[in-house]
Amino acid sequence: MTLWVRFSQGHIVGFGTLAGDQIAEHQGLMLDGSAPTGRRIPLAEVTLLTPTVPTKFIGLWNNFHASAAKNGNAIPAEPLYFLKGPNSFHPTGAPIRVPPKYEGKILYEGELGIVIGRSLFDVDEDEAEAGIFGYTCVNDVTALDVLRRDPSFVQWTRAKSFDTFGIFGPAIATGLDPATLTIRTLVDGRERQNYAASDMIFQPKQIVSLISRDMTLEPGDIIACGTSLGAGPMRPGAEVEVVIEGIGILANRLA
Amino acid sequence: MTLWVRFSQGHIVGFGTLAGDQIAEHQGLMLDGSAPTGRRIPLAEVTLLTPTVPTKFIGLWNNFHASAAKNGNAIPAEPLYFLKGPNSFHPTGAPIRVPPKYEGKILYEGELGIVIGRSLFDVDEDEAEAGIFGYTCVNDVTALDVLRRDPSFVQWTRAKSFDTFGIFGPAIATGLDPATLTIRTLVDGRERQNYAASDMIFQPKQIVSLISRDMTLEPGDIIACGTSLGAGPMRPGAEVEVVIEGIGILANRLA
Repeated sequence: MTLWVRFSQGHIVGFGTLAGDQIAEHQGLMLDGSAPTGRRIPLAEVTLLTPTVPTKFIGLWNNFHASAAKNGNAIPAEPLYFLKGPNSFHPTGAPIRVPPKYEGKILYEGELGIVIGRSLFDVDEDEAEAGIFGYTCVNDVTALDVLRRDPSFVQWTRAKSFDTFGIFGPAIATGLDPATLTIRTLVDGRERQNYAASDMIFQPKQIVSLISRDMTLEPGDIIACGTSLGAGPMRPGAEVEVVIEGIGILANRLA
Repeated sequence: MTLWVRFSQGHIVGFGTLAGDQIAEHQGLMLDGSAPTGRRIPLAEVTLLTPTVPTKFIGLWNNFHASAAKNGNAIPAEPLYFLKGPNSFHPTGAPIRVPPKYEGKILYEGELGIVIGRSLFDVDEDEAEAGIFGYTCVNDVTALDVLRRDPSFVQWTRAKSFDTFGIFGPAIATGLDPATLTIRTLVDGRERQNYAASDMIFQPKQIVSLISRDMTLEPGDIIACGTSLGAGPMRPGAEVEVVIEGIGILANRLA
């Protein structure tokens, strides 16, 4: 298993693999062949960036049996999803900012994120699995009061795409079996979410295969697999950590 | 008034202004300062590309009084919108491709597109107007049978984001008053849409100002202002032209 990160150090942007409290810098393309430069950089000296720069960030709704049952939602026949705008992409450690004219609730949603490794169109589940580079943590931040305030149009795009609301990282783990993972979310150190990825209605390879029927997925694209029980509102100043053992801790404070 | 295009000629990608049946090639940045190179290239020798490469392409729903009245939709209190994925971005002249596993209806929707000229966040209407670089034609292609087939979740993203479904161009017109424009759509030469931009519920500067409250808009981003009466299905082989006098003709055939 390898953990990939992208970072800035002064004006330099680089990437590499985590080795304890250091980064083993690499050169080349993270998703398409790279080699170590030999340089080791202490994590304390860098700022972590989003581990990829996606062309798109897709988020699923209603993808867990437990939350579907609790909320009275039918099991969907296909993955149901929205897009999060590129303006929302945000790394671990950076504050979540609420726009000046929004006064409603802001939700955290801890999720497992799929990271696409190669261009995929109309692929079957085996090809989809082979085309997944790895997995990351996602905080799919949501402006709840926007979502259903217009009775004729549910505003998924708007509620999910405020600047800083598309948080993923800190690393991409390769070589993991997603069915073994547990997604936990802590708010100010108290556990609010703890659910198994195996409870997904559509598993990652199915999600990727089914979405690829209509949309070409590109290297670095992120698909957040949806959240389960325990997503909730944050107060100003709250520290939210999405924790997936084997990947890492995605930590952000609401400004 | 100036008409800006982006083009490829062999392996070269360039941009410039239209002058009759030639392009006056420019160098620099189309949206942030450029100068003519002196080279003139016959339009017949190039392939037109999308006039910008947007970070995002936003589409409005229910933004015309006439279509709201006919369809029984309430006048919305704010712009209602979705995102079209980057995989959908498509230039004039290139065929619209339907994914192999989709057998439903495909709609054309002729629209006016706003092209953003600078980074805009939380701007008022005057700043919004000053931040609009120009206007283009949009064909907001839609997989109609996807849209409402799940009773719990309207699939705007999926229906609007198939590869090749986000068509805009052929040019960006600067120095136009959008309130004077008429959007026409022809299918195989027969007029199917003919409506005035002045019938918009939210005018371009209002749209840009209101969306900028939540999402930073970036240079080159596209906002399609929504369609009005006459949008309809296309048959395989149909040629659809979105025609806006002062901008040009956006022409694509359904493969």
